[in-house]
Parts: sequence; structure tokens; C-alpha cells
Amino acid sequence: MDLHAMDRYIKSLIKEAGHKIRNSFLSDISIESKSDANDLVTNIDKEIEQFFISRINRDFPGHRIFGEEGFGDRIEDQNGVIWLLDPIDGTMNFVHQKRNFAISLGIYEDGVGKLGYIYDVVNDDLYHGVQGGGAYYNDERLRPLGITTIEESILAMNATWAVPNRHFDHNGTLKLIQDVRGIRSYGSAALELAYLASGRIDAYISMRLSPWDIAGGMVIAREVGAIATNFRGEPGNLLEQDTFLVANPSIHSRILKDYIRQK
Amino acid sequence: MDLHAMDRYIKSLIKEAGHKIRNSFLSDISIESKSDANDLVTNIDKEIEQFFISRINRDFPGHRIFGEEGFGDRIEDQNGVIWLLDPIDGTMNFVHQKRNFAISLGIYEDGVGKLGYIYDVVNDDLYHGVQGGGAYYNDERLRPLGITTIEESILAMNATWAVPNRHFDHNGTLKLIQDVRGIRSYGSAALELAYLASGRIDAYISMRLSPWDIAGGMVIAREVGAIATNFRGEPGNLLEQDTFLVANPSIHSRILKDYIRQK
Repeated sequence: MDLHAMDRYIKSLIKEAGHKIRNSFLSDISIESKSDANDLVTNIDKEIEQFFISRINRDFPGHRIFGEEGFGDRIEDQNGVIWLLDPIDGTMNFVHQKRNFAISLGIYEDGVGKLGYIYDVVNDDLYHGVQGGGAYYNDERLRPLGITTIEESILAMNATWAVPNRHFDHNGTLKLIQDVRGIRSYGSAALELAYLASGRIDAYISMRLSPWDIAGGMVIAREVGAIATNFRGEPGNLLEQDTFLVANPSIHSRILKDYIRQK
Repeated sequence: MDLHAMDRYIKSLIKEAGHKIRNSFLSDISIESKSDANDLVTNIDKEIEQFFISRINRDFPGHRIFGEEGFGDRIEDQNGVIWLLDPIDGTMNFVHQKRNFAISLGIYEDGVGKLGYIYDVVNDDLYHGVQGGGAYYNDERLRPLGITTIEESILAMNATWAVPNRHFDHNGTLKLIQDVRGIRSYGSAALELAYLASGRIDAYISMRLSPWDIAGGMVIAREVGAIATNFRGEPGNLLEQDTFLVANPSIHSRILKDYIRQK
């Protein structure tokens, strides 16, 4: 792959998709629920995924596409080039707030992240990363993450994970909430990864994310030195839902070791 | 008071203060802790409060000022005109993120909110309200809040309130977290009130806020029909810290009745 040419192509494609999303605010949006009442999808999520797929199929035949809305390919292995796409990450924010959502896109080759993009559509803020070539916020290079401590950290997580449940010991989560400096929750995994990469938060934790939520952000976050794993300390899996912790390298292992207890 | 003239004066004053804050990003910011290690204050919080006080004292002699950093007056009653000011609401965000903080200002006369302002400094977004004259987002009038339900609501709260504590039953909070559609946390009470007033969230709850955190936002929120009380259902107190719930009118009483249990 010619990463430089692909990068230019993708940036243009993402900006065009962002323009379509902003235009959608002028018309009625139809909202449905998916797996549960709060797992929302709109006609715009679907239209934007189909827009990406038609362009990728036309211009990159042979590449495969793994998209949240299911219009892409059925992906059961990591061979070749795969585009992992969430056309609107943070659909609840899109519906309720008309802001705080992002296009999330990662390009992987044989399982290795090559290019990553998170586009904050309403703010017209683009975060991107190129394997070995750095991470950028609106084309300004992001600095490697500095050293921090749990006690000085801002952690992004959803308060839902403080509720007792059968997957992990919520007392670990409550301890973490008490030990960090502050907790935030923005409602878009992609934006939370972008915030992590730009040093505005120091860790982001979620009990359940899909590959398209994090594929783009992982490429960006790793270029500034962040560590991303599941709760067993293993690198993210591109094929299925998993637990997820991405953090500043000085606190990642301590969070896993001292606060995360899977049942 | 001539509210119209004061409104023009205050908007200009706030924009000037915002300019000073944005300029401060170019120089070093010195950070200290106040009541605890995570209660931050910077030289900029102090300088901005002093800037407001010097202008208000010069142009509105006789008015009193109640500011977070303590350079204003000692306020023990609500007589006359009081300016309630938080020069930087969300200091932790200011320090760690250089965004997601606001200037918060409320003007009260004999305990009644007359004018309210929340200025999102980095986005240059101004929310304001005039008693009986409506609420505005960048001078566009905000619509009255529509009808909603707990199950369709987005609630802003800090995950800290899910931790067992001696003030209230955290099981009520956990139940609320499970019943609403989504939870967010932005780290600035003023911005959370601005989001509430513009319909992006449906409720905001905090176990401990000071008058200057909410004085401006309450004037704005009430103009769109929001209800703001403490956990006992009483109107906010302008003299001391208290519990706080502001919500869409269709869910306020249900949250108080079904989820909040003070010990």
C-alpha cells in the first residue's frame, strides 16, 4: 500500500462524509433501536456506511470492509487489507446532541494497523495516525504522552461500569473512581481515544467495545505511546467484541493489576 | 436595574475576560490545590476574578460580588444586587485539557435571578438568560424543553456519586444509572447546565455545588422551563454549598422521588 496516497484519499473521503452528515441536520432523521432500546441507529448511520462502501469498492477492489451497520463484508480472518468503519460513533449523541460524535476508520493489513482516523464532524477536527509516521490533530503533530500517576490522571469511563454485574468485580471500578483525579464520560469511544491521544485524558476504559469503535483510534493512540489491550492484557482483537483499556504507558499496567478483576 | 444595558455591558466584559484566558495558554500557568489534592486553582482563576471585581466595583458601586476565589465580598444575606462569579468553572479541565471550562456569572437582586451567563471560552459559545426574557445560545433563542421520560433521558453526573458514602444511598444512584438512556460527565457544572438548557442532556445531578457554580446557569435553565432544586426539593440557596438537581420538568420530581435517598 502507498500509505501517503491512501492518506490523502481517505482524508478527502472523510471530509465528504462529514459534509453529508452535517447536511442531514437540515432534514428529518429516522431513529431505530438495535440490540436494546438504547442502542440507536439512524438512516444517516446506514447511508454514510453505504457511501464509504461504494467508494472503497470502486477505488480499492480487493480490500474488505468491516462496518458497524453490517453492509460490508463478513470478516472472519485478518488477511489482506481491511477497513474497519464506524460511520457515526456516538449515535446517541448524534441523535440527542447533534455533536460529540465521530467518524471512526482504521485501515489494517494482515492484522497490523496502518492508518487511523477519527473525525469530530461538528467541530471539523480530524485526528489521524500513520503507522511509524506519528499522530496528528488537524495536521499538527501530537507529542508523545508524558509521565503521569493514577492520582493525577483523568479517566474516561461510563458510570454504567460502577453497577454490580456478573462480568467483573465492580468494587475495583469504584476504587479506581476514588483514586483518580477526575472521571469524564463523553459517550463516543472514538472521541475518547482521540482525547487520550491528545493528552486531555489519561485512560479510557470500557467493558464492551466492537472492533470498529477502536480500530482507528488504536493506530493514533499507539503513535503517541499509549498502550491498548483487553482486560487480560492482550492486544485488541479485530474480529469481535472485547473489553478495552487504553492508557498512558505509565499507568496502564497498574490499572490492569490493581483495579480490574474479571469474574 | 436596566437589564438591557447591563446585558450589553456584561457580554462585553465576559468576552474580554475570555480573551485574557485564551491568551494565558501562551504563558506558564501555576497550579495549586485548595481543599484537597484534586481541587485545583491557578493564577488565571485568581487574575480573572480580580479583573471582574475591579470592573464591577468601578462601574457598579454598591453591587456586591460573591466569587469562588474569595476576592469579592463576604456575603451573608441576599439583599441588593449580587454578582455570583466563577471565573473558571472546570479548572481541572482548564489545566488538563485547555478546553471544556466556562466563565459562570449570575446577577441576582434581592435573591431573584435577573441575568445569567455561561461562556464556553475556547469554543467562543455564549449561553445567557434574562429573567422573563428567554434563554439564548449565541443570541439564538433556545426553545422550551420538550416532554421526555427517564428511560429516554441523558443524565449528566460524576461517577464519584456511585461510590458508597455517608451522605445518601448510592443504590439510588446506581438504579438511576441503569434506568436512563445514557450517562455523561463533562467536568464543569456550568457547561452541564448550559447543555441542559439547550436540550443536549435532560438532567444534571451533583451532591455538592457552590452558589457560583450554578447561579448563572439557573437563570438560563429556568427560562426554558427546567426545574432546579436541592435534594429536598427546595429552590437553590445562594449562600452556601448544597446538593443540586436540575432537570427537564417532566422528570425532575420522579428523579427526586424514586432515586434520591439522603441518609
